[in-house]
This record gives sequence, C-alpha cells and structure tokens, in this order.
Amino acid sequence: MTIGTLVLLRHGESTWNAENLFTGWVDVPLSEKGTTEARRGGELLRETGVLPDVLHTSLLRRAITTANIALDGADRHWIPVRRDWRLNERHYGALQGKNKKQTLDEYGEEQFMLWRRSYDTPPPEIDPGDEFSQEGDARYADLGAEMPRTECLQDVVTRLLPYWESAIVPDLRAGRTVLVAAHGNSLRALVKHLDGISDADIAGLNIPTGIPLRYDLDEQLRPTNPGGTYLDPDAAASAAAAVANQGR
Amino acid sequence: MTIGTLVLLRHGESTWNAENLFTGWVDVPLSEKGTTEARRGGELLRETGVLPDVLHTSLLRRAITTANIALDGADRHWIPVRRDWRLNERHYGALQGKNKKQTLDEYGEEQFMLWRRSYDTPPPEIDPGDEFSQEGDARYADLGAEMPRTECLQDVVTRLLPYWESAIVPDLRAGRTVLVAAHGNSLRALVKHLDGISDADIAGLNIPTGIPLRYDLDEQLRPTNPGGTYLDPDAAASAAAAVANQGR
Repeated sequence: MTIGTLVLLRHGESTWNAENLFTGWVDVPLSEKGTTEARRGGELLRETGVLPDVLHTSLLRRAITTANIALDGADRHWIPVRRDWRLNERHYGALQGKNKKQTLDEYGEEQFMLWRRSYDTPPPEIDPGDEFSQEGDARYADLGAEMPRTECLQDVVTRLLPYWESAIVPDLRAGRTVLVAAHGNSLRALVKHLDGISDADIAGLNIPTGIPLRYDLDEQLRPTNPGGTYLDPDAAASAAAAVANQGR
Repeated sequence: MTIGTLVLLRHGESTWNAENLFTGWVDVPLSEKGTTEARRGGELLRETGVLPDVLHTSLLRRAITTANIALDGADRHWIPVRRDWRLNERHYGALQGKNKKQTLDEYGEEQFMLWRRSYDTPPPEIDPGDEFSQEGDARYADLGAEMPRTECLQDVVTRLLPYWESAIVPDLRAGRTVLVAAHGNSLRALVKHLDGISDADIAGLNIPTGIPLRYDLDEQLRPTNPGGTYLDPDAAASAAAAVANQGR
C-alpha cells in the first residue's frame, strides 16, 4: 500500500551551468533555459495531475525559483513551504567558481572524476576569505560548526538524512504529496537512500533537470516503483545522457 | 523600545486591476506593471537595509509572486514562509469579476461607494455556482463554515486578527523583521488595528502598491512611528492619490 507520494525536482539550468562553472553553494540564478525548464516542470505536474500539497526546498535561489515557477504553473503556488540548508547542493569546496573544463585540463581526468563522482573524496576546502565562500552569509548563521567548507556525496547523505526523517517523512506519513525542489547531488543522496543504491553505483546515476520524478512509498518508505517514475520518461532519458557528458 | 519591525507590502498591479475589474478572491496574476512594482519593492528593501527574516503571505498569487520577486531582489528569497487565507484580499461577493465602471453606472455612486468603502456593508453574496466563486477550491478545503461568500472590511478585521495574534506577533516578539505581503483591504484591516483608526476614518485610507511600509513596534505592539514609514515616501504620496481615484 502506498502511504504518500514524493516528487523530486532538480532545478533548471543556472547561469553557471551554462558557463560550465562549479557552483555548489554559490547562489546563482536560473538561465533563460532554466526558466523554461521550470515552466515545463510545472506543466508536467498539471498535465499528470501530480499536485504537491507541500514544498521543501534548499536555501538556494535556483531551486527556490524553479519551485516557484513550477508551482505557479501547476496552480499550487499557495501550498506550504519549508526551506532548509540540508537540501542544498553539495558544497564544492575550493572548486566553487572554477571552470570545469579548465579544472579537468589542470588536474587530469582521474582527479577530476574523483572530485566529481567519488562517494567519499571531497575537493580541497574553500578558504573562508575566498570570494565564493559563504562564510558570514546570514542564511547560514545558525549552522555553527556544521557549516561545511567542502563536501563529498557521503557528507551530503549525512546532513540530508536528518531532515528527511524529521521534516519530509512526517509530511509523507500524513498522506501528503511532497515536492522536494533541490539539486543534482542532494537529490542523488536522497535517491541513493530511497532505492538502496550502493556507494559505488551511485556514481553512475544522473538526475535530469526540470523533469519531476515521482516515487510512491509504502509503509516502510520503500518505493513501490523502484527508481521512480519520470513524468516525462522520454525527455528524462535523453537529458540524463546529456548530463553524463557535462564537463567534456 | 522597539521589539520588532513589521513591513507591509501590497501586491503590484494585477491583470484585473489593469482591466478595472473587482477581483477579491479570484486568483489573477500580476500585470507587467505589477511585476515591475514588485521588483522596485525589492530594490527598496535592499537599498534601505530593511531585510525581512520571515514572510507571511495570502494564498493568492498576486501577493505570493510580489513577495517572491521582491525577496529575490533583496537577496532574501531563502527566508521562511507562511501562507494563510486570513491574509487574503476582502472577498468581493457577487461583484467578483464585474467591471468597476459598469457597476458604478448601474448602481450609482452611493451604493458603489458603500460596497467599496463602508466598514460594515458587504456586497451581495456570490452564488456558489458562479464562475468567479472559490467554492470547491482545494486551498480552502479546511475552512468549512468559515468560507466567506462576501465580506465587508469588518469581516476582514475579524478573520485577520486571530492570525495576527497567533502567527505574526510571535515572530515580532522573537525580534524578527516580518514581511507581510498581502492586499489593499487585508493590509487596511491590519493598519486599522495597529494605528487604532476608527471605523469611519479607515474609509479614507489607501495603501499604495509595491512600496514597503515599515512599522516599528513597542512592547505593547503599538507603532513607535504611528502611520508607519514608507520606504519611498514621495512615490507613496503620489500613488495613494492615484488609488483614491480608482474606478472613476
């Protein structure tokens, strides 16, 4: 029996995606293409009748704006909202603000892929005085020692799961359709948990942008549709292939 | 001593404002001018350093979108949000969807002004089957017998104050800067309460769109700046004059 429906939405293209820069916690806006993707996400929600009752987002504007646009398009702009840093993108450490292609050329394929895709190797820490550090940003004032200076995917899993358990699960158990609007890596962390994907296999998983991914969950919060169901499966398949080639 | 700062923001022009229609609870979007007004509201927050810590909005997209745009412009898109029907515009009853000029011509100046500006005379109730009724709208499913079919300003005061006391005041007492993004009449109801304006005098009060209005409140939640302070006083003065002539 299904107790609740979870809908994952990765934000549309940001201006820094378009410029091929590592973004992480740097709070860049959507590009024009990203805005279009968000609008399409809203159409898919409306067309398929998957209507969120509550929204959870990160504290970053590319996820927040994506959710705002999609929910407005689905006529669900009025639902309750919760925002939390635990849904943020992976902190990319000293790579934040750096060009992906240049980083690849400078450090070589092996190191580059280790930083991008290994489960437990974070990039070097960002200097607190770096122009792309979030040190001193008011939205993270309450984090204290939890404030990251770099993260690997394992770190994201570790900081995400307490929010999943304490904030998202109660909404699902109340029978709500829950929209989580977040990022490539925070959503990979969540999908890893939901589908029980191994530390090694998660490296190969890419979630396309702007296409809602529906999970129907049973009493034990296991997907009755393992891997989830994209609301536009054809678009998801071709987009996933494109993401895999990013940075090349 | 000031315990908290309250910032009121009336939504920018909607498509129905532009077409001179009674709107009430009909959920119309901002016009292009309204979008520009919202952006200006955000600039004013940023320029004056009045930075909201928490947002309260109605369930209507013209207020929600105004807040989204203004907060994004002020780099405060990440703050917590609460939405509640008690901040909605006055329900305009059977007048919803009707042209203001035609209504004036049909019913005459006296009746028209009674509906628009009297404190305790609501327009006729809307028929639940009317195309501009909100009967059956999912966002109001929990209202039950509280669901209005028309409202006068007194009704708005009555339904607004419980939310003020239970949701907004606690945020103010916690020392937060609170943004309330709402509507001409829900904000008039709130200002009436804050400034102790009489039932008769509130008829003459117009709040301009898109210009944040700051109240600094003391321990008894009385304004230390009675009447509040517009973040752009010159624009507020000329806009208030224009609103007073609306419908003519």
